[in-house]
Amino acid sequence: MGRGLLGEAGSRIAALEARTAAIVTDGHVGPLYAEALAASLQQHGLRVSIITLPPGEATKSYASLERVCDAVLEAKVERGDLVVALGGGVMGDLAGFAAAVVRRGVRLVQVPTTLLSQVDSSVGGKTGINSLHGKNLVGAFHQPSLVLADTALLDTLPIREMRAGYAEVVKYGLIDDPDFFAWCEANWRGVFDGGPERDEAVAQSCRAKAAVVVKDEREDGDRALLNLGHTFGHALERITYYDSARLVHGEGVAIGMCQAFRFSVALGVCPPADAERVEAHLSEAGLPTRLAQVPGGCGTVDELLDAMAQDKKVKGGALTFILVRGIGQSFIARDVPVASVRAFLQDENSTSRP
Amino acid sequence: MGRGLLGEAGSRIAALEARTAAIVTDGHVGPLYAEALAASLQQHGLRVSIITLPPGEATKSYASLERVCDAVLEAKVERGDLVVALGGGVMGDLAGFAAAVVRRGVRLVQVPTTLLSQVDSSVGGKTGINSLHGKNLVGAFHQPSLVLADTALLDTLPIREMRAGYAEVVKYGLIDDPDFFAWCEANWRGVFDGGPERDEAVAQSCRAKAAVVVKDEREDGDRALLNLGHTFGHALERITYYDSARLVHGEGVAIGMCQAFRFSVALGVCPPADAERVEAHLSEAGLPTRLAQVPGGCGTVDELLDAMAQDKKVKGGALTFILVRGIGQSFIARDVPVASVRAFLQDENSTSRP
Repeated sequence: MGRGLLGEAGSRIAALEARTAAIVTDGHVGPLYAEALAASLQQHGLRVSIITLPPGEATKSYASLERVCDAVLEAKVERGDLVVALGGGVMGDLAGFAAAVVRRGVRLVQVPTTLLSQVDSSVGGKTGINSLHGKNLVGAFHQPSLVLADTALLDTLPIREMRAGYAEVVKYGLIDDPDFFAWCEANWRGVFDGGPERDEAVAQSCRAKAAVVVKDEREDGDRALLNLGHTFGHALERITYYDSARLVHGEGVAIGMCQAFRFSVALGVCPPADAERVEAHLSEAGLPTRLAQVPGGCGTVDELLDAMAQDKKVKGGALTFILVRGIGQSFIARDVPVASVRAFLQDENSTSRP
Repeated sequence: MGRGLLGEAGSRIAALEARTAAIVTDGHVGPLYAEALAASLQQHGLRVSIITLPPGEATKSYASLERVCDAVLEAKVERGDLVVALGGGVMGDLAGFAAAVVRRGVRLVQVPTTLLSQVDSSVGGKTGINSLHGKNLVGAFHQPSLVLADTALLDTLPIREMRAGYAEVVKYGLIDDPDFFAWCEANWRGVFDGGPERDEAVAQSCRAKAAVVVKDEREDGDRALLNLGHTFGHALERITYYDSARLVHGEGVAIGMCQAFRFSVALGVCPPADAERVEAHLSEAGLPTRLAQVPGGCGTVDELLDAMAQDKKVKGGALTFILVRGIGQSFIARDVPVASVRAFLQDENSTSRP
């Protein structure tokens, strides 16, 4: 992790001692960085192919998986060789899943180019594609052999994507680190402007995520805390058909985290002041915090509940939520009655509409 | 493993304490057993769905994977729930792969209904589909929670499928158990006729495979011995377009094992008498042993070599073969020169044509 790391990609990746690397990228990121990355790998003796896919969440599909797997095989990537995911979370998830299943597993290098993927999806080994039934419902756990996060690449990231990634940075504070949340309140402008605060935020986020994943790689226990804001957030993404013009993942998470706080307040376990403080900070950073801010609306309460029930963090028919006792005090609540969620959402719908 | 085990399926599977089971089967096997299996599971309190696909190797496709994954999600199979593969190796591989990737892994029960799947594919955790580039090139390692092998189901198995499965039984003797090969020579008719020899052959085969897999689940070392006959065999399957009218997997393996023995003789490491004895026994059991026996032929030497090079047991561009010093004395030969293979295949082509 660091500023300018992409320049060292060839030597860092060559140290993995593979013979062949298939770079998987998209039509936005590829033209900017793929040729330079390929040249750097070739200089270090690797045989390189570049596979370019359309940008956007719709690319996390079965059809793209087939296309990437066949292209990786066509590139004669053998066991011990590499798939290099160059791009944001979509590329990381898709290329990572292909790496997990081609020849029942080849090695993976993540080169995340967005804030979101640098602080979240490139760490932890989750890979996958979307199903008609929901986001990331088909996939594999496949740890990367190497993650190269060049924070300088974020200098040209659109502001909306920067904000979306920042929601996940804030999440690490909300989960179990109130000091880091306070640091975010004081330093968020530096993160956006590319000062040393950015490197610090990325490093702290990766450390926080890795600490959770190391304890619970397969998500049988505490890893679920990383889903703070995601049960609501995924439902919103589903209901907006993963249409990034309406909602991107980080925006869904921002609204979802605020909902998790407000729901915790409604259940009487969290002080209202903490929920207000979270909402204030996310708003200040330019993120949405309310259902009403989703362009085109987000359906009825029943539609939201149905979208939630398809989330994979469901066990035995009961809903599992990450709730909070305050900032930095999240916990896993299993068997949350659907009636409580329904009442909360009805209240949200009535209060968030003018 | 045992005769009549399907009658106990409900209680055995219910012991896994899942709530929902999705039975994945094909149009041949489903009509015979799926309803009875579903009823038995429902009696034991499980919610059951049945997903039926076309029979045949062509079903091990990306499109089928999508169909099965979506149907399993539609059936609301959650983590901890079950996918039940009811059928031969195609169903086991396809449903097993779906179980590996739906929600990044749900539990799998294998109910193999062919000799081949009972003695080979249901044990060991390999799952996958075929790619344009070769067989089983996309997949996952996913161990079943339970394998139920009812040997009575083989009573109605077509003789050609019985023979194909028997090739894998013989393989376990050829790998490292000369006594078991001699037992096969003496008892093969009982295996085919459904006597106690069948149960013994299935049990011994599963034990032999499990012993290898336990030592090397991910195929970094000795598990490769299980591929005796498979480098040649897979190439033949590929070259005949997985057309079961021309060649089924076990037939390819039978020819491939004979080729492995003849290749070993040609390389001067195996006595010719052992190769002749293997060929004689497989012929006696009704299996093909020569390239010329493949209806429609099997292409040129170059086409065969090219098909072999796409096999996933390739490392660093060199061919890896399982060779033999005699019956029950197989070994892994890495870096076999392509020139040797070419010379051998040219010889095979000239001698096997009348």
